[in-house]
Amino acid sequence: MVRPDQKGDATSREGDKSRAPKELTPAPGTSVRHVVPVMSGKGGVGKSTVAALLAVRLTMAGWQVGILDADVTGPSIPKLFGIKPSPVVAKGGLVPATSRLGIRVMSLNLLLPREDEPVIWRGPLIAGAVRQFWTDVLWGQLDCLVVDLPPGTGDAPLTVLQSIPVDGVVIVSAPQQLTTMVVSKAIGMARRLGAPILGLVENMSGVRCSRCGELIQVFGPSQARRICGSAGIRLLGVLPLDPELSRLGDRGAIEEYAGGEFLGVVASLLEADQARHQRGGRS
Amino acid sequence: MVRPDQKGDATSREGDKSRAPKELTPAPGTSVRHVVPVMSGKGGVGKSTVAALLAVRLTMAGWQVGILDADVTGPSIPKLFGIKPSPVVAKGGLVPATSRLGIRVMSLNLLLPREDEPVIWRGPLIAGAVRQFWTDVLWGQLDCLVVDLPPGTGDAPLTVLQSIPVDGVVIVSAPQQLTTMVVSKAIGMARRLGAPILGLVENMSGVRCSRCGELIQVFGPSQARRICGSAGIRLLGVLPLDPELSRLGDRGAIEEYAGGEFLGVVASLLEADQARHQRGGRS
Repeated sequence: MVRPDQKGDATSREGDKSRAPKELTPAPGTSVRHVVPVMSGKGGVGKSTVAALLAVRLTMAGWQVGILDADVTGPSIPKLFGIKPSPVVAKGGLVPATSRLGIRVMSLNLLLPREDEPVIWRGPLIAGAVRQFWTDVLWGQLDCLVVDLPPGTGDAPLTVLQSIPVDGVVIVSAPQQLTTMVVSKAIGMARRLGAPILGLVENMSGVRCSRCGELIQVFGPSQARRICGSAGIRLLGVLPLDPELSRLGDRGAIEEYAGGEFLGVVASLLEADQARHQRGGRS
Repeated sequence: MVRPDQKGDATSREGDKSRAPKELTPAPGTSVRHVVPVMSGKGGVGKSTVAALLAVRLTMAGWQVGILDADVTGPSIPKLFGIKPSPVVAKGGLVPATSRLGIRVMSLNLLLPREDEPVIWRGPLIAGAVRQFWTDVLWGQLDCLVVDLPPGTGDAPLTVLQSIPVDGVVIVSAPQQLTTMVVSKAIGMARRLGAPILGLVENMSGVRCSRCGELIQVFGPSQARRICGSAGIRLLGVLPLDPELSRLGDRGAIEEYAGGEFLGVVASLLEADQARHQRGGRS
């Protein structure tokens, strides 16, 4: 929630003091109302899928949305949207690619000659790329920038939470208890860095048998209510393991997926938070 | 395959020249016959599970096995084996924990006061921890040290492939095409750093309905043969999405899982490679 003309703003926000000195200025002409990182700690719980569906739902609600793919060494956002490498360097910065629905996307994969090229980088380079995706990309006017974070609690999540003004984090988990432990680490990291948490999405919460309709809890029973209860955070919703979602993702057509409507609630949570904030109080 | 008394050995191996200068000496009394990193590029494909099952199969074949959990910010190995934090600092180094079957384990989670404590570290610290797990842990005599790498192609995988003498990498993938792309990056990284690849394990390859037996290809049809064919690597085997495996992992009882026998082939692949190597040729 930083506009180029309001750089001092963030320092006045509670919980932001530790991050404020390092906050970076976005490219000229960029104005982002809300920044929402999607994080998990654990890999493979469908963080990119949730980030993509969140962007789609906010777009359908009439918002102008961007996705900053901060998973520099394992980027999957362009593939989900069927966007091919097409870097455009304009005067003043990098031009993001645009999805069919008009979502603006920046990912390291758009800048590589081949999408399966490995990016063998040490932390400081990774952190540098993430910072540049904030400072050097011509995002323009956005209502929301969704940031797809890599798994873990290392360089990229640390850089995003420290140097980009975050409005609220969406946590993604899966039912397995092993996941629960690692997700708790991500919640702890967000808290320690003063980033507000909007809520949790549990992904991969069982699959329906296509023949008999039986619910198979592949990763065990849902742990979502337990995590949310003990961490004191909101349960945004639960996504099943849905072969249709995999198929659409593989075809680059995630925008056609009908599920995950509950993610639309993120828009009203952000607006309510902003209204409360403007009234001077922040709970 | 470095013994303290044979430090110069690795420099004579083909493909190792770029890594040799940085190779690190393990703790006194340590002798490791084979080092096998398990990597994927993509998170959540069950890399830790495959690493654990590989260690179990090699142990059942009579080998003395250790697991170095290099996933510093998202460690899951202790949980899979039901090992609680119990760091023992002895004269000369850190003593690894021991599983029920006798597998020696070192993980950052064993050194944390609480297992859900986040480790918010930048790359150089992560690389440092991984290096110390090789140089400061009293591994003793091991036939095989399995290294569980974090997702991505960043600091930890780079450090392992550059500073520990690797005998062969096991690649883990899952059927989704999105995964295929990221797994190709990991294969490219191993190749570029001169690490031989033992083969690929496809995990999460469909689930059987517990009521009607229907095979549900949650993440789409298997891509294993296609990846192996185009990359020219061996298919070690395929693991289904098995709720029993999740349950045992969550209970810390992964050693009781009956599947994944095919992973035993890794022992003979390593021995064959060593024999060929000792005869002077390396294919």
